[in-house]
Amino acid sequence: MIFARVIGTVVSTQKDENLNGMKLLLCKETDASGKPLNTYHVAVDAVQAGEGDFVLVAYGSSARMTDVTRNAPIDAVIMAIIDDVQLAE
Amino acid sequence: MIFARVIGTVVSTQKDENLNGMKLLLCKETDASGKPLNTYHVAVDAVQAGEGDFVLVAYGSSARMTDVTRNAPIDAVIMAIIDDVQLAE
Amino acid sequence: MIFARVIGTVVSTQKDENLNGMKLLLCKETDASGKPLNTYHVAVDAVQAGEGDFVLVAYGSSARMTDVTRNAPIDAVIMAIIDDVQLAE
Amino acid sequence: MIFARVIGTVVSTQKDENLNGMKLLLCKETDASGKPLNTYHVAVDAVQAGEGDFVLVAYGSSARMTDVTRNAPIDAVIMAIIDDVQLAE
Amino acid sequence: MIFARVIGTVVSTQKDENLNGMKLLLCKETDASGKPLNTYHVAVDAVQAGEGDFVLVAYGSSARMTDVTRNAPIDAVIMAIIDDVQLAE
Repeated sequence: MIFARVIGTVVSTQKDENLNGMKLLLCKETDASGKPLNTYHVAVDAVQAGEGDFVLVAYGSSARMTDVTRNAPIDAVIMAIIDDVQLAE
Repeated sequence: MIFARVIGTVVSTQKDENLNGMKLLLCKETDASGKPLNTYHVAVDAVQAGEGDFVLVAYGSSARMTDVTRNAPIDAVIMAIIDDVQLAE
Repeated sequence: MIFARVIGTVVSTQKDENLNGMKLLLCKETDASGKPLNTYHVAVDAVQAGEGDFVLVAYGSSARMTDVTRNAPIDAVIMAIIDDVQLAE
Repeated sequence: MIFARVIGTVVSTQKDENLNGMKLLLCKETDASGKPLNTYHVAVDAVQAGEGDFVLVAYGSSARMTDVTRNAPIDAVIMAIIDDVQLAE
Repeated sequence: MIFARVIGTVVSTQKDENLNGMKLLLCKETDASGKPLNTYHVAVDAVQAGEGDFVLVAYGSSARMTDVTRNAPIDAVIMAIIDDVQLAE
């Protein structure tokens, strides 16, 4: 999974019907501390994430393993909102 | 999913029979604002996309999750045409 | 899918039995115009491709979606020989 | 699989319900000798790994092939703790 | 598939039970001529490969498509030992 921050929304009317009702969020990848990197990801939201949230994005077939995304033609899902990253001392 | 713009068509006569009837589109990757990058992708069209369209491309097994692409030996599909990318303020 | 040109053959005697009868081709990645890049791929041939052919290679689980490659432990397949890449004007 | 060292924990309350009970560990990729590289991975723990452990991380659909991670929307799992890497002489 | 040379063994006692009996080999990626590159891969051996062997490694779900690796949480398998790479003249 990768770290990202939600920074926007992708709007699409003409899309595969299996995407109906899904929220496509624009995410900017970050490092483990939440510092933004220069890579963007579009992921479907499975956890009611909102703009500004620090999240985890899962890629590949695993992106279809939530109730929201089952069988959809998508390769990335937001499956957790991060409260904290605790480093070992 | 990644951002791309459709810029052409790939023509193939000798191909796996599970590809029959599919449109292979040449896409140039872009950033979130639609600005072209230097990476190309060939993806099957599942949403009647045309040249110049700003689209989303999904990779991997998810590329087979549309009615158009079911069971086909392809690893990339255009599954949405983008109307707008809205950034948080 | 990625663009490539077939440039050779990989010969293997000691291999997984599910590979029996498959042709392992060495491919050099190209750009959309067929110009060679510096990346190599080994892919199983599903379309009777020959050396010099300009082809499309699909990666991942989709590589197993041809009659030739069903259930084989391979992650790349040549699933189309390219006649032409037509750019929008 | 890739080499990594466990360096922390990711805490998440609001997450997909299929993640309940799983431990999300922050891992820093290493080379074969355990020397840290600059890439981070978040992986689910399937082998009771703890902070400081030198581990193997598997990516993709294979990350769901443990009893702990079955059907979860995750793309990386720690599936082995490394005792030793023995180089040929 | 990628080219690699087997250069060592990864020893693990505490691992997912679906890995029991599998040999985890350390591989150094090579180019098509067998010249070593600077990337390492850990792959499960499905073809009785030994140290020094020039092999092909398949990634992703396809890594589980051998009798040895069925259903195991691993993302890379050695599925062929290379006798020769024949370049077109």
